[in-house]
Amino acid sequence: MSVRLALLHLTPSNAPKRRISNAMLVRIQFAILILLISLVTAASADDVAKRLVTLGDPARGIEPCATCHQANGGGSESIGAPRLAAVNAFYLAQQIDNFNDGNRKHSIMQPWAELLTDAEIAALSEYFAALPPASNARVPADSDPKDGEWLALDGDWTERRLPACGQCHGRLGSGVGQHFPALAGQPYSYLVRQMAAWTTGERTGDPLGMMGAVNAKLSVAEIQAVAAFYASLPVADSAVASGASSPGSSATAMSPPQQSSEPAPMAHKKPLPHQGEVPSGRLPGKAGHFNPPARGDKPGDAFGEEVALGERIFTQTNSHEISGKYVGNQQTCEGCHLDAGRLADAAPMWAAWVAYPAYRSKDKQVNTITERIQGCFNYSMNAQASEVGHPPAAESPVIHALESYLYWLATGAPTGDKAMPGRGYPKLAETEQGFDPQRGAAIYEKNCAICHGADGTGGDASDTMVFPPLWGARSYNWGAGMHRIDTAAAYIKTNMPLGNFLELTDQQAWDVAAFMNAHERPQDPRFAGVVAETAEQFHGSQFDYYGKREGADGKLLGTSSPGSAQ
Amino acid sequence: MSVRLALLHLTPSNAPKRRISNAMLVRIQFAILILLISLVTAASADDVAKRLVTLGDPARGIEPCATCHQANGGGSESIGAPRLAAVNAFYLAQQIDNFNDGNRKHSIMQPWAELLTDAEIAALSEYFAALPPASNARVPADSDPKDGEWLALDGDWTERRLPACGQCHGRLGSGVGQHFPALAGQPYSYLVRQMAAWTTGERTGDPLGMMGAVNAKLSVAEIQAVAAFYASLPVADSAVASGASSPGSSATAMSPPQQSSEPAPMAHKKPLPHQGEVPSGRLPGKAGHFNPPARGDKPGDAFGEEVALGERIFTQTNSHEISGKYVGNQQTCEGCHLDAGRLADAAPMWAAWVAYPAYRSKDKQVNTITERIQGCFNYSMNAQASEVGHPPAAESPVIHALESYLYWLATGAPTGDKAMPGRGYPKLAETEQGFDPQRGAAIYEKNCAICHGADGTGGDASDTMVFPPLWGARSYNWGAGMHRIDTAAAYIKTNMPLGNFLELTDQQAWDVAAFMNAHERPQDPRFAGVVAETAEQFHGSQFDYYGKREGADGKLLGTSSPGSAQ
Repeated sequence: MSVRLALLHLTPSNAPKRRISNAMLVRIQFAILILLISLVTAASADDVAKRLVTLGDPARGIEPCATCHQANGGGSESIGAPRLAAVNAFYLAQQIDNFNDGNRKHSIMQPWAELLTDAEIAALSEYFAALPPASNARVPADSDPKDGEWLALDGDWTERRLPACGQCHGRLGSGVGQHFPALAGQPYSYLVRQMAAWTTGERTGDPLGMMGAVNAKLSVAEIQAVAAFYASLPVADSAVASGASSPGSSATAMSPPQQSSEPAPMAHKKPLPHQGEVPSGRLPGKAGHFNPPARGDKPGDAFGEEVALGERIFTQTNSHEISGKYVGNQQTCEGCHLDAGRLADAAPMWAAWVAYPAYRSKDKQVNTITERIQGCFNYSMNAQASEVGHPPAAESPVIHALESYLYWLATGAPTGDKAMPGRGYPKLAETEQGFDPQRGAAIYEKNCAICHGADGTGGDASDTMVFPPLWGARSYNWGAGMHRIDTAAAYIKTNMPLGNFLELTDQQAWDVAAFMNAHERPQDPRFAGVVAETAEQFHGSQFDYYGKREGADGKLLGTSSPGSAQ
Repeated sequence: MSVRLALLHLTPSNAPKRRISNAMLVRIQFAILILLISLVTAASADDVAKRLVTLGDPARGIEPCATCHQANGGGSESIGAPRLAAVNAFYLAQQIDNFNDGNRKHSIMQPWAELLTDAEIAALSEYFAALPPASNARVPADSDPKDGEWLALDGDWTERRLPACGQCHGRLGSGVGQHFPALAGQPYSYLVRQMAAWTTGERTGDPLGMMGAVNAKLSVAEIQAVAAFYASLPVADSAVASGASSPGSSATAMSPPQQSSEPAPMAHKKPLPHQGEVPSGRLPGKAGHFNPPARGDKPGDAFGEEVALGERIFTQTNSHEISGKYVGNQQTCEGCHLDAGRLADAAPMWAAWVAYPAYRSKDKQVNTITERIQGCFNYSMNAQASEVGHPPAAESPVIHALESYLYWLATGAPTGDKAMPGRGYPKLAETEQGFDPQRGAAIYEKNCAICHGADGTGGDASDTMVFPPLWGARSYNWGAGMHRIDTAAAYIKTNMPLGNFLELTDQQAWDVAAFMNAHERPQDPRFAGVVAETAEQFHGSQFDYYGKREGADGKLLGTSSPGSAQ
C-alpha cells in the first residue's frame, strides 16, 4: 500500500492531478523510509552470509562454508559435503535445526550449528538457495548411473511397495517444496552416506518417518546405484527445484556424465540382487498378483513406441504435450492408479483392460475401455475446464497411446476376467463410528498435509503434478469416483501414505476420506442447473456429500464449485 | 408392346386424339390375338396341373398328387410326403428328373415320374410353387423342436466342421435359390427320411455331394432333432423362399409349435450325445484350438444382451436394423469369419480381440480394435456406398455391440497373444505354376457357382445375404484384404466349399482365388482420382490385380468400379 502511494506521488503530468494533503505526505515519506530500511537490511543479510561462506567466523571457530561446500555451493565429492546451491531455503534452515535437535549427527556441523544465530541461519539459507544451480558431483568410475535409474524413477512397488525416489523429490530429483530436497547433482558420497544414515537411524526427523521406512527396504548395492543415478543428473534451476519435477533447463553441473535433462530411452537395467535379504520392517509384498511386463520389456517397434508414449501420458497426463489440453485440473492417471497403473489394489490397468466392455450403472449402458478412459478425463481430470473442454476422441493419438499401454500391461491376463485379484481398491468395511470430517481433519493435518498441502492443493503451483490436489479447482470433480467417501477410504487405507509404510486404521481412513470429500471441488459435468436435482439423480449414496453438506464457505457442496466449464 | 398399343386403342376421349392408320390397326388386332392365345395357353397349363393334382390321370395310372401331398400342397406327416406348396419351381422339376435318373429312389414316385411329360412337369412345378405357403407338418409329441436348433442354426464347426443347415437353406429354412429347398414346415417324417437317405447314399444328385457329406456327420438323434426343429417352423412365403433367408411373414402352417418367425431367445440346448461314434468321412476337427464360450452361455444381464446383439449384427451385418445403414454391399462379418467369428483358421474373433491394439502397415499406425472393425466396414463392407457413407463411429451402438461380442468370444484368451493357433487364415504356400484366372474359371464353375452364382453375385437379389457376392457392386471393395489373391487363396483352401468337405488342391485354391479377384469390384476408398497412383501407393503386391490387369470389360481393374461412393 505504501509503495503504491509513493508511486502515486510520482504520477506523470498527463495523469489526472490529485491534491495531496499533508497527512498523506507524511505517510508517503514514512513508506519510503520503510522501503530503504528493508533494502539495507537485505544487503546486510547477504553480507552476513557471504562473510560466513567465504571467511567463516574465526572468533567463534566457524570455518568458511565454502571450505567444504565450495564457493559455488556445489558440494564436495571427496569429503561428502552436500550441494547447497539452489536448494530450497526452508529445507536448508531446517537442517541446521536438525543438527541442533540431534536428528542429524555430524561431528563438524553440529558444533557450528549451535553457534549460528537465527538471522545467520536465515541469511545463509537464502544465500545458498539463491545461488545459480551448481554441482561438483562425480560418479565413481566403476559405477554405471543407469543401474539405479529403475529404482529412482519407478521404485519397486510390486515386490516391496517401494515408491520411486522421484515420486516425492521430483522425477529427476529437482526437489519439491520445502520438505523434499533436490537430489540431482548431489555428491555421490553424500547421497550414499545419508541413505545409510536413514537406514541405521543415525539420521531422523523426516516427516512421517518416510525416509527411514523407504531406505530400510534398500540393499547397499541399491543405495549406491540410486546415489550414482542422482549424482549424475544435471542440476535443475532453483525455481524448478522449489516446485516442480519437470526437467531442469539450465543445469551447470561440472561433470554430469549425462547432460540431457530427461534420461535417454534405454533398456531398463534388471533390478540388482537383494542377496536374499529381507530388510526388517518390510511390508508384505504383492506376490501372487498378476505381474505386468517389466517396464523395459516394451517391444522395440512401432507398437512399443506407442506403449511408451501411453506410459508417459499416463504418468504426466496434465502436462504432456498431447494430453494436457484435455485435462482441466492438476491430475494424472497415475494419481489414482499408482506405479503407472501397475500396482495391485491401486486400481491396476491390467485388471481394468480385461474387464471391458462392461455394463456400468454410472451411465446405464455397456462401456468400452475407450469410454471408460474418456470417463476418467471427464471426471477425475475435469475435462470440462480443459483447453478443449472435452475428453480425447476415440480416434485421438491420446486414446491410441493409452489403450496400447493398458493392453500391453495386461499381456497374458485372461480376457474377460472381471475379478482379477488386486483389481480396484479393496473394499473397506464400515466402522461402528461411521465417518466424520472433523475427526478426519486432524488425521489429514498429521499424515497428509506434508505432501498434499494443508489447503489440499498438492502444495505445488506449477503445471506439472507431483502430489495430486485433493480438493479445489485443481482437483477431481464431483463426478469422479474418488469423490465418494467409500471409494476414497478404500484407496487411502490400502495405499496412503505413499508406500503405505505408515498404516492408518480403518477408522482413520474413513475419517480422512470424509474430510477430503467434504471440500468443494469442480462441478459434476452432468450438472444441469440445479444442484438438488443433480444430487438426487447421481448422488444418492450415503457416501456422497454433494448437495447434502455445507462446505467451508457455509454453502451446500456443489453450489460454489470452482474450475467448472469455461 | 402389344398391350400398350391395345390400351392406346382404348384411349379415353379426353386424351389427345391420334390418327390411326390401317397398318397400325392390323398390328393392334394381331397383338390382341397374341394376348388372348397366351392367356388361353396359361390357363391350359394351370388346368393340366390342377387336373393332375386333384384327379391324377387314371388312364396312365397316375394317382392325384393331392392324395399324398394334400390339396394345400402342405405334404403329409403320416405318409412322409413332402410339402410342395411355395417350394421353388426349378427345384421341384429337378426332383422329377432325379427320380428318373435314379438319384432319388421311391417306389411310388419313380413310375409316375417316368410317365410325366416335360410340359406336365413344368406345369406342376409352377403350380405348386405358386400355391400359398402351407404346411401339414406335426412334430412328434415326445420331441422338443428346440433340441435341434443349435445344429440347424449354428452347426458344429469346431468339432466337425459341420455348417449349419441354415447356412445354405436360409437361416429359418425358407429355401434359397434353385438348389437349396425350403425346410421350414416340411413334415418331420419326410425330413428324417431324406436325411437318412443322404447318409446311406440312397439319395444322391446333390450339388458337390454336399448333402451326403453333411449328413454323414450327424447321428440319428441329431437327424431327428434337426427334423423336428425345421418341421416346427412356420412356412415362409414363396417369394422369400426363392431368395432370402429372412423370416417369413405369412406363414400358414397348420400346427407349428412355434409361431414367431425368429426363434425366441432361449438358452441353447447342449449338443446331443454322439455316442462316441465318429461318422466315417469326418474331417479332422479343430480340437486343440482355443474354444470360445458356448453360444448359450451368454450372461443373463445387460452385458449379455449386448453380446447377443453383437452376435446378430455379426451374422446379419448388412440387413440388421442398426448396422445395415453402414454397409454398402451384400456382406456380413460372418462372410469372412465363419461360424459367427468362432472358427479357427477362418480369422476367428477371439484371436483378433487379444491382438489389438497393433501396428498395421495398411495405415502405418497403431490401430485399436475399434479401428480394425471400422476398417472392415470401410473395405469388406464398402461403407462408402452405404446409406450413411461411412463406418459406425466408436461411440455407436454397433461398435458397442460388436466389441462386446468379440470380447466375450475371447473370454479366457491371453491378452496380447498375437499368435494364437488358428488366428487368421493359414498361409498357403506358393505353387510352381503360380496362379491363373483362366484355370480358375473352370474350378469356379464346378465348385463355387452353385452357391455364389455364375456371375459372382451370390445368386440372390434380396437384401439379406446368404452366400457372399464375390465380385461386382455387391461385393467387397478393392481395399479389402480379401481382394489380395494370397489372402483369398488361403481362405479358400482352408474353408471352401463351406465345411471344406470337398478339399481343393493348393493349385486349385490359388487359381480360383485369382479368378475371383480378376473381376471388377467397388473402388478402393483410398482412391484419390488416378488408378495408377492408387495402384502404386496401395497395390504393389504381386498378389494384387488392381490397376494391373484387364477385367471382363477390357478395362484395367479399378477403372470401372461399380458401387462406389454415392
